[in-house]
Parts: sequence; C-alpha cells; structure tokens
Amino acid sequence: MTPKVYLAGPEVFLPDAVEVGRRKVAICARYGLAGLFPLDLDGPAVAPTSSAIFQACCAAMREADAVIANLTPFRGVGADPGTAFELGYMLAFGRPVFGYTNDPLAHLERVRSGFGPLRTERGQFFAADGYAVENFELFDNLMLAEALLAHGGTGVFTPAAPARSDPGRDLGTFERCVSHAAAALRDGSWGEARPKTFP
Amino acid sequence: MTPKVYLAGPEVFLPDAVEVGRRKVAICARYGLAGLFPLDLDGPAVAPTSSAIFQACCAAMREADAVIANLTPFRGVGADPGTAFELGYMLAFGRPVFGYTNDPLAHLERVRSGFGPLRTERGQFFAADGYAVENFELFDNLMLAEALLAHGGTGVFTPAAPARSDPGRDLGTFERCVSHAAAALRDGSWGEARPKTFP
Repeated sequence: MTPKVYLAGPEVFLPDAVEVGRRKVAICARYGLAGLFPLDLDGPAVAPTSSAIFQACCAAMREADAVIANLTPFRGVGADPGTAFELGYMLAFGRPVFGYTNDPLAHLERVRSGFGPLRTERGQFFAADGYAVENFELFDNLMLAEALLAHGGTGVFTPAAPARSDPGRDLGTFERCVSHAAAALRDGSWGEARPKTFP
Repeated sequence: MTPKVYLAGPEVFLPDAVEVGRRKVAICARYGLAGLFPLDLDGPAVAPTSSAIFQACCAAMREADAVIANLTPFRGVGADPGTAFELGYMLAFGRPVFGYTNDPLAHLERVRSGFGPLRTERGQFFAADGYAVENFELFDNLMLAEALLAHGGTGVFTPAAPARSDPGRDLGTFERCVSHAAAALRDGSWGEARPKTFP
C-alpha cells in the first residue's frame, strides 16, 4: 500500500497554492508516497467555512500515515502556528513526523535578525521583547525540533545554502525530506534518532 | 479528583517565569484545578537538555485532563509555535482544549499592523509577503481557533480592552478562561460549541 503523507505548511496561502500543491504531490509520487494537500481535501467547495476546513484537515491527518511539515518561518521568527498545531496532532497519534525549513538560520539567529541585538544575563540570551531565547542550536522552538528527532528518524531538513530567493516555492529541501521520509517509512527507521522514551 | 490542566504558553521564557507560573497555578487552584506548569516538571535539574524538556512536557500533557493555552502572539503575528504544537497534541488525544490571548486583535488586523496595508484580489486579502490572509474573523490560524470551538465548549478568550501594558504577565483573561474550563470540565460541556463531528 502506498503510504499517505499529510502535507502541512503555509504554502496553502500562496496565490498559486494549488499549483505548488500539485508539485509537492508529484514529488511525493516519485518517491512512492501519496501526498495529501489540504487544498485538495474539500473538492471544489465554494467559500468553505473555517469549521469545514478544520474538520477536513483533521480527517485527512487521521487518515495519513505520516506528516511532512513545512516549518519555514511565517510572519514571525517561527513556524506557522497552524502547521505547528498539525505537527503536534500527528505526533500525539504516534505517527512519524518529518519536517523541513527553507530558512537555514538557527532559532537564536532568527530572533537576533528579527528583534535586534540580544543581551545575555547569567548565561541566558534575552531579546528586546524581554523574553529569553532558547539556545539549544535548534531551528525553532524545541517542541517542534525534538518531535522530529524523536519520531522522524532525523532532525529538520534545512537548505545548505543561504535562504533562497523564493522560499515559499522552492521545493529542493522538501524533496530531500520526502526522500528521507519514504526510506524511513519503508524500513521503519523513523523512531531511532533519539532514545525510545517517547510513548 | 482534581482535574489536571497543562498550562501551555510562552511565559516560560520570561525572566520571572517561575513566579508567573506560581500565580497561574494559584489561580487554577482557586477554581478547583491542578495546574501543571512546564517549568515545574523537571524539578531542580541543572541545564536540562532540549530532549529532556520535550519528554517531560509530553509526559505532562499525557497526564493532564485538559490544556489551557496562552495563544498571545509571540515574536510574530501568531501564537508561539511550541504552544500551538501542544494544543494540537492535546486535541489529538481527545482532551478538552481551552485557550486565551492577551491581544484583542483579529488575525487580519494583526497581519495588517505587522505587515502594512493589505491588497485585495478576487475577494481575498494579501499581505506584502505575497501570502493570502485568512479572513474568518478569527484570532489566529483557523486550526487553533476551530480546535477551541470544537473541543473547548467556546472560542478563545480575549481581553475586552485594548492590549494591556504587560501582556506577558496580565492574568485577567487567563482567569476568565480558567473559570470557563473549570465549569466545562465539571459539567462536560466542553464539546458543544460546534456540531460533534470531531472524533
């Protein structure tokens, strides 16, 4: 059976989201995976309600064997909250969770570039907003990063080069993540990057 | 038995997070709830690893009967991704999910104030980043907002007045949310704000 993979990410908000979704699904197919793209779930519904979209996405996640999440920062230093929500949802179901970001910066550098110089106090970094900055050399909030390590067989996929010119549509890092996900789903190696203390 | 409520939110990053956590737990106690604050989970561990924190938070969520999430925007227009992740996690477990924000603005207004004027095209709003803006009159991404409606007995709690001077430490809206959560957990009314099509 072809494994089904829920394709979470803020690209659903692009004006050409349907086309980007088609490209993602086509890449999945080349690696033997069936991609479920949120915009394809409702069919040609006219003006769907937020409730109907929520229900359709939850149903698709429950149907999926895994999630591949686009965790590129969205309107802030971190991942789209809707995508982060879906990552947590899939993890709680015990499904493998895979993710990538088209922003190569670590969390600390993202905060520094978005909020100016950081101050240090007793070994901790603080941003100008008065909140401490996580400094675990992870790409985003530790819950997201550790979820991928605990239940994805590896950490987040990041671009090797500096940020691309069109991070919303660049699917190079996505494809590396798909390739890993396909292999990990095939050989069951998605749970091995951290000691198996997760449920 | 006293219901246990996991207290999710970015206040764990405040320099006085331990004190804010104590105040939140004390408010919960006044309403008959046992608050589980993430910083209290690890005990006095020295320099815990990101993996240990992740495991401790997941274990506490699995132990909790519900979550109360602080969904105030954090370093961007939307909720802290770690908190959004935890909301999805608890929803997938079928637990009641409650939430509040100390920012009274709707999502569309948040994007407008963070990214400048929006343009409209075929009835849709777009921000300067080229992405469409959800326009469902919700406070944040629809997955978060609808989760609260589907599995919390009501929508998000927001402050009546404009943003407070210290939104990270103002617990007035939190207390209203706790009061609702305590009543909803007592009488089982947390699943009724939307038709019960959720699992």
